[in-house]
Parts: sequence; structure tokens; C-alpha cells
Amino acid sequence: MAIGTATDAKVDALRAQLPAVQTTGYFNTGSNGPIPIVAYEAADAVARRELEQGRIVPGAYTDNRDRNRRFAAMAAAIFGADGDEIALTHSATEGLGTALMGMTWNPGDEIITTFEEHPGLLLPLALLARRFGVVTRYADIGDGSSGVVEALGSRITSRTRVIAVSHVLWSTGAVLPLREISELARQHEVMVVVDGAQSAGQVPVDLHALNVDAYAMAGQKWLCGPEATGLLYVRRDSFADIAPTFARYGQFEPSGYFIPAQGAMRYEIGEFYSPAVAAQEAALRWLRDEVDLAWAFDRIATLGAEFRRRLTSIDGVKVATPSEPMAGLVNFTIAGLSPQDVTSQLYERGYTIRYVETAPCTVSARASIGWWNTEEEVAGLAAAVADLVDRGTGEGG
Amino acid sequence: MAIGTATDAKVDALRAQLPAVQTTGYFNTGSNGPIPIVAYEAADAVARRELEQGRIVPGAYTDNRDRNRRFAAMAAAIFGADGDEIALTHSATEGLGTALMGMTWNPGDEIITTFEEHPGLLLPLALLARRFGVVTRYADIGDGSSGVVEALGSRITSRTRVIAVSHVLWSTGAVLPLREISELARQHEVMVVVDGAQSAGQVPVDLHALNVDAYAMAGQKWLCGPEATGLLYVRRDSFADIAPTFARYGQFEPSGYFIPAQGAMRYEIGEFYSPAVAAQEAALRWLRDEVDLAWAFDRIATLGAEFRRRLTSIDGVKVATPSEPMAGLVNFTIAGLSPQDVTSQLYERGYTIRYVETAPCTVSARASIGWWNTEEEVAGLAAAVADLVDRGTGEGG
Repeated sequence: MAIGTATDAKVDALRAQLPAVQTTGYFNTGSNGPIPIVAYEAADAVARRELEQGRIVPGAYTDNRDRNRRFAAMAAAIFGADGDEIALTHSATEGLGTALMGMTWNPGDEIITTFEEHPGLLLPLALLARRFGVVTRYADIGDGSSGVVEALGSRITSRTRVIAVSHVLWSTGAVLPLREISELARQHEVMVVVDGAQSAGQVPVDLHALNVDAYAMAGQKWLCGPEATGLLYVRRDSFADIAPTFARYGQFEPSGYFIPAQGAMRYEIGEFYSPAVAAQEAALRWLRDEVDLAWAFDRIATLGAEFRRRLTSIDGVKVATPSEPMAGLVNFTIAGLSPQDVTSQLYERGYTIRYVETAPCTVSARASIGWWNTEEEVAGLAAAVADLVDRGTGEGG
Repeated sequence: MAIGTATDAKVDALRAQLPAVQTTGYFNTGSNGPIPIVAYEAADAVARRELEQGRIVPGAYTDNRDRNRRFAAMAAAIFGADGDEIALTHSATEGLGTALMGMTWNPGDEIITTFEEHPGLLLPLALLARRFGVVTRYADIGDGSSGVVEALGSRITSRTRVIAVSHVLWSTGAVLPLREISELARQHEVMVVVDGAQSAGQVPVDLHALNVDAYAMAGQKWLCGPEATGLLYVRRDSFADIAPTFARYGQFEPSGYFIPAQGAMRYEIGEFYSPAVAAQEAALRWLRDEVDLAWAFDRIATLGAEFRRRLTSIDGVKVATPSEPMAGLVNFTIAGLSPQDVTSQLYERGYTIRYVETAPCTVSARASIGWWNTEEEVAGLAAAVADLVDRGTGEGG
């Protein structure tokens, strides 16, 4: 009871820093996370300075570049990488495109992926098919709970260049065995590109241990940062395999020679909005120091499992998320209601979730259980789902 | 006198909306423009809403997409294009890279550019050399005041695919004869890709009349928007020549077929930060409705010519900017002082300018004359330059 009270007090204190979780049952971090006040304030301080003092004070260029590298180094330390292996991006999809477009493709080269991936990965793969004749082979991994390595392995041929998968599936919530997938890939001299949009901030991510080649994170979901932010990890050994597709810094020579920016900075595209970088940095520091990421991962997993358990006891609800290994995403369907209808009817009851229904993945309604959710909210959401089932049955009967 | 007074009153009123121009003699819009208060306020309203109400309210996805298209349509109307020919970007360099990386290259294909281009164009060209064996041919156009079309034309061969040049040269301030360049290009079935980083908001830009294939603008310079914003125009006829290099929206099919997002939206990379888009939209509307772009172009040109005239009368100052055609950029050197020294010594005197010294272009100090600059500031900056010359001579003698 004392421990429970301490946890409740911590959750209460942290929730006070997240105004958006007070306006709704906030169960849609799979789309966008809530923003902590410190992130808003950090952005506003920079935006005000830019307004009032301008953006042309001496040193502004190098200051911004230094700030980006400092943030990359902080993120690298959190995710088990080196600072020069992290590039800033404007989305996880941008990071995936950067890794995939950076390779030199020959027609007939093959990439293995799964039916459960997000369009943010599948669209870049389809673009590679269109532009370079790359063949995408889909592995059937079911809900992602077992047999994943075998399913991927069965698709490997002599033409396979890359395995491209999510760390946490958006459509079933399963946490894929990335380390084993990397081991398989290394045995066949195949590269591994990871969609980490749903994983960073939801589950532990130790990039060097995972032994992948590229890993793209979203800033605006479980990391509680501004939208249009993200991070791309490319392991140093893979710099030679993944060329930059855009160039904004570096050295060049008019007869056509070129040295890109140092490290993973070579992969950065466009520029970065200073207030947004400041907010991203403040949010990540807050997660690390005030929230405690290990505590957050544990709480997400505990509450996620609890919510899943509650759903499985409701007749008429089909849970798409496996019991193991899962974390905070719980996908489900209600007989007779479309996922869109489930989402809108739960919204009317005070809970914001999201539907997932982009082919070819498992179609479902999805609740993203955050560490900021209370036990009462989790129970309340489950009760609201049960209520929808009852009403659906009543209306249909 | 009455007219002068009315103009002064207008300038005073508008300057009050640009806090940064009150902290320094603001002569570096070539790097970053001042931000109007309305842009800050528009961004802050969205940032506060995102903090307090969250980013997952129903309709948020389509609202953001609609907002981006609405902004693209407003920009298109201002710049003489159609709405579906404008993509949002995170910088002019990103726009240039998007146009160039979107083409299908064969080794030995040639691109013509000039020695006076910014690294934001020359780096992507060098990257094409590295990745696809594209040959960049440099035309010597001098300061850009005359013989430009002939110089570019003399480099055309049967392998030439693209002419890639700036509209306004960052290193001499010359306004290139784009319409004539396009005519030359069409005669040879060559495409025209334009670096419009210094032109949009400084000089009139009528995209359909210019008849170019792609035109990349910066949002943070003469358009007074947030950094990490920009626009890419691709004329509709060129959609077939310029493929998307990244895909974030569109339709696809697992066996490898793909339809990109509609119109120029297909060229957008990553995501866009809602507060920054709101600021960009507010700044552009303010320029259009409160400032009046025609008035701004005229005032920039008049003050630019006046500043140039004053510099030409100072012994020891060499003006790199031609008298015709030029607008608000005035590049110059002072005997015995590096452009960096000129910049830092003028900063001590209350004027913020910028140096331009990236090979292979003309090396100079550069003053960006904005419509918000007063006649007194322009005279004062010229006097400060004269003072540097005197001191330089005194110290050296």
C-alpha cells in the first residue's frame, strides 16, 4: 500500500506536467504523445528569443549545429549508441526512407518485410520497387508472437539485401525479437532496417546490443516530443553501405568530388526548427531524469498486460495483441463494430484511442497504454469497451 | 515630402511588428529574416493548443493535411503557380535535392551550373556525381550581370539534362535572366532547376511566366518565416520527370505497385511542425496583406541601389554587385580586411551583415537590404563601411 501510494503520487505529479492527459483518457500515443510543459516552455523560450533578438547574432550557425549534436549525443546515450551514429529527422518515415534510399540497388534485389508493417515503411519499399526494380517479399509472421525469425528466414534468397521490420508492431503490439532477427541477417550477409516509430519510449531500446544497421525513431509518440521530429540511428559500420541521399553540409570540389558531413549528420535532410529541437531535448531529458525511463517501461508493460487481460474476459471482444511479448499497444476488435466506430464511440465516452486499418495489416482498434495512465483509467477504458459490446449486442438483437 | 512621410509612417508601423530589427541594423536577411509578431503569435497559439488539448482530437490528421494544402495554395497564388504544384519543405536545399534526386540519371549525364552558386545547390550536384556519375559543368557567368545565357549555352552538349542556377546570386546579388535561361533550355530539351533561396520575398517571382521545371524557396529569409521551412515548386508537366525520392502518403500494393500522393505533395519529406506551418502562413499573409509585396520589392530595389551607389563612392571598397540587374543584396570587399573581419567590425558598430566565402564563388562581405531598413540605417551602414576603410588605411599606414 505504501508502494502503491508512492507510485500514485509520482504518477499524479507527472500527470500535472502533461495537460493533455487531463482532457481525455489519453490512449493514443501510438499516434501522438502528450507534450510535457517543460517542452512547451523550452520551445517558447527559443521562439521568443528568435522573435526579439533575431536569428543572426554571431555564432548562431555553430550554436545551432552544436545544439543538434549535443541532443544527438544525449539520445545516443539513452538508446545505447554513439553520438555520431544519430541523425535528426522530421519523422520515422523520413529515417526509413533515408536508410533505404541510401543503398545502391540493382533490379531484382530483394527486401523482406511483414504484412504487419506501417505504410511509413511499406510505401518507401513500394517506391524502391518503382524506381529501382527492388522486389519486396512479405513474410507471414502472424501476430508476431512466435515463429518470426523462421518466417523471415524462409523468405531469404541469394538476392536478399535487407530485412525491414518494426521493433513493435503498430497493428498487433507484438515486440519482435530484433536481436535474433539481426543474428539471422548477419548469417546471410543481409542488412536490418528497423521501424522504431512505436518502440522508442515504449520499450527498452539498446541499439548496439540489437546489432541492427539502421533504426528510425519517431519523436512525437512515446518520446513526447513535437511532431515533425525523429531520430535515425545508423551503426558506424554501415556508413559505407548507406550513402546520404541529400547533402546540406560537407566538402565538395567543382570537378565532382564530395565528402559528406561527419558521422550520421550526413543523413540529415533540410533544416531543423530551433524551438522544436529545444522541445525535443527538454522532453527527452524530462523522461530520463524526472520520469525515469526504466520505471516508465515497466509501468507501460504492467498496465498494458492488465488492460489486455481485462479485454480477454469480455465476450464479443477479439484481442489481436499476443500475451507475450507485448508492451503498451493493445489491438482489438468488437464484433459488429468497425474499428472506426469503436474509436468514435469510445471518444464519446471520454477515451481517445485510434483505429488501424491500412492494408495489408491486421485491422483493429488500438489502445496505447501510457505510463501516465492511471489504473482507474485503464479499468474505465475496459469497462467502456464492455459497454460498447453490450450496446452493440442489444442494438443488433 | 508628403509621400516620404507616408512611407516613413508605414515603415515605422511595420518595423514595430519586427522586434529583431530594433536590436541591430538588420542587414542579414540573406541568412535569416526578422520574424513578425503575428508569426510568433500564430505559432504560439498552436503550440499552446497542442500542449493543452493534445494532438489526437478527432480530425487532427485531416486538419493538418488540409492546412498544409491551404498554405500551399496561398503561396501558389502569390508566386504565380497552381496549388498542386507547391510542396512544403524544410529548406531550399531540401527542395533542390528533391528535384535533382527525383530524376533518373545515367552515368555521364551532365548538369550545367555556375561558379556563383551556394553550397546548397553545389553539394547536391556533387552528391549526384558520387552516386550516379553525373558530370557537373561550371559556366563562368562573371558577376551575373551580362552574357549569362550565352555562358550557359556554351556549356550545353548532347548529354546535358539540367541547367541548375539561382534566381538571385548569393555572392554578387545579380538577378539572373531566368525566363531567357528557360527559353534556351527548352530549345535543347534541357530542364531548369532553380535555387530561389534569395529570391522569394526579395524580388517578384512569377513561376509560370519563368517557365522553369523546379524552383526551391527558403521560408526563413526574405519570407520572414521560421527556419526549417521552405517551398518547392514543380511544374505539373515535370511531375513525370521528377519522381518522389521519399514516400509518406500514397497508395501501394504488396506486390510492389505504388501511386504517390496527389500533385506536388508527393515531394514532401518527413512531417511538418504545426506551429511552424502556422507561423509561415501568418508571415506570408502579413507580407501579402499588411506589407504589400509589390511595395516591398520596390523599396528593397530602391534602397539596395542607393546603398550600392554609396559604396561605389568610397575609395578602398570594391563592389561585387553589378548595378543592373540587382535588388537587395550588395556584396563588397574592403582592401586589407577579410570579409569575416568586415562583418565582425560592422557588428561592433551596430550593423549585422554576413560574409560569403565558400569556394568556388566570389568572396565578399554581403549586406542584405530589407524593406524594413530605414534610409538612415542604409546611410549609416555606408558610413560605417567608410569608417572601416579609413581605420584600415590608418592602421596599415
